[in-house]
Amino acid sequence: MPTLEDIRRAASGLHGRIHRTPMVTSSALDELFGARLSLKAELFQKTGSFKVRGLLHKTLQLTAGERERGVVTVSAGNAAGALAWAARDAGVPATVVMAKTAVPAKIDAARAYGARVELVEGDLIAAYESIRDERGLTGVHPFDDLDVITGHASLALELLADSPGLDTVLVPVGGGGLISGIALGIKLLEPTVRVIGIEPETADVVSRSLEAGAPQKLATAKSVADGLAAPVCGTHNFPIIQRYVDQVVRVGEAALIEATRLVMSRTKLALEPAAAASFAALLEGKVELPGLTAAVISGGNLDVTKLNL
Amino acid sequence: MPTLEDIRRAASGLHGRIHRTPMVTSSALDELFGARLSLKAELFQKTGSFKVRGLLHKTLQLTAGERERGVVTVSAGNAAGALAWAARDAGVPATVVMAKTAVPAKIDAARAYGARVELVEGDLIAAYESIRDERGLTGVHPFDDLDVITGHASLALELLADSPGLDTVLVPVGGGGLISGIALGIKLLEPTVRVIGIEPETADVVSRSLEAGAPQKLATAKSVADGLAAPVCGTHNFPIIQRYVDQVVRVGEAALIEATRLVMSRTKLALEPAAAASFAALLEGKVELPGLTAAVISGGNLDVTKLNL
Repeated sequence: MPTLEDIRRAASGLHGRIHRTPMVTSSALDELFGARLSLKAELFQKTGSFKVRGLLHKTLQLTAGERERGVVTVSAGNAAGALAWAARDAGVPATVVMAKTAVPAKIDAARAYGARVELVEGDLIAAYESIRDERGLTGVHPFDDLDVITGHASLALELLADSPGLDTVLVPVGGGGLISGIALGIKLLEPTVRVIGIEPETADVVSRSLEAGAPQKLATAKSVADGLAAPVCGTHNFPIIQRYVDQVVRVGEAALIEATRLVMSRTKLALEPAAAASFAALLEGKVELPGLTAAVISGGNLDVTKLNL
Repeated sequence: MPTLEDIRRAASGLHGRIHRTPMVTSSALDELFGARLSLKAELFQKTGSFKVRGLLHKTLQLTAGERERGVVTVSAGNAAGALAWAARDAGVPATVVMAKTAVPAKIDAARAYGARVELVEGDLIAAYESIRDERGLTGVHPFDDLDVITGHASLALELLADSPGLDTVLVPVGGGGLISGIALGIKLLEPTVRVIGIEPETADVVSRSLEAGAPQKLATAKSVADGLAAPVCGTHNFPIIQRYVDQVVRVGEAALIEATRLVMSRTKLALEPAAAASFAALLEGKVELPGLTAAVISGGNLDVTKLNL
């Protein structure tokens, strides 16, 4: 398991290459929920999501040979753009395997950052493995990787530094990448701060994994929060989540939609539905927030063609 | 005409009551347009738009008697919320006259800030005048008022302070309130900085007024940029615009829609269509930007029910 020293080294390596995103407050949201909320605006992060933290850190750990041959990842969206950007930043050729049905803006972003995009119908993982092996590329899992987790953990250091007296952190949950990193960093530094995950009822692989006591796999995982629709819980992420996450709650699709609109209208942040998950839990009354709470606004790669003007 | 001293006094009176909004940059937008752009994020202003600058300044200038009797304004949207908020902040009762067809979120905002909202079908101005006279309220015009213009001019001081070497300011144009304030402040301080206005082709009352040499009135003014659909050019605003604005260009509805989506996807700012007007002009190739350019992102009171998730 990564140590606090590993996390601090990762944060130091990322410093100056990525943004130190701001904490945003909203008196309207505080009033509405009777809480003291601080929103960590990772939608303003490079590539529009937190993913670049872990994926850039991972890319920076590669050997010279791996860097030369290049990297490949498989992603529904944000990890594709993040790896493409990170690889370009580190001077490494990148290939990303994406579903033909991915949000077009996320496909375009990966291409714009210079990645070779392979659009696939059917089994994404099989396509990714065969491309990796045939081309001799280094596979980078979008979340099930200790270096990726260590990079994401840099967020925990910023949350603690910017929120003196922090009581609770709310984290959207897909396959467990972000929450394992944040929980690890938070608990190594401040074990009394609570870490609560929120995942869609229709893509609840982490809740099911915790209930079963082992990483599970879903036959289907689909949500309006496309960034959270991971069908598997990472094997490296699971033990960290099991040990360090206080609670994971499920939220419905209607609450995710309402939360996205609510947070956008009150804060003027163009967040994607995944990033509004914490507020879906608040709308459903699923979490109690007695003290200062940080909600991670994980990304802003909305499909803007869905804005009917 | 307000002096530089008036504007500085207004800015000082607003200081601490409203936000000093940030300048946001986007390398993606700079690359796309071959420009150096800085976005003044007034969507993060109190009430979600710049309007609160002028309307709070106006409210602070009222006599004790006027404050006690209360104020009334008429607005399609943002000015209603801004006056409601400003009046509450200054301890003055507020009434706002709005069209029944106004964006529901803008009606709700005015109510939430404690204003008495009068929803009107038909002639808004007639309704406003009769409410004002019958109830003995002080009428506050949403833009055709020298105190309102002076308050808006506080934006010019911030633009100049935050953009050393500024070449051009791009300003969305409705009835002329914002651009008259900005142009006045900019030209009194830095006469070589260009001020360019952008208004919808379908609500082009300021362009027509400049062409006619006198303030005009439109029979209809409708645009996807509802914040810019003013049917009249203010009589106090017109001479300032005529003297100090370098150019006003018209943009089409399709460009306004495309610009809103483009800026949202690249910056993650949830701007309203009016606020994207400058980028509509860039998309249509209507402005040349040789140097550092500030684009005023005037507001973020989007109708979020139009976000189809």
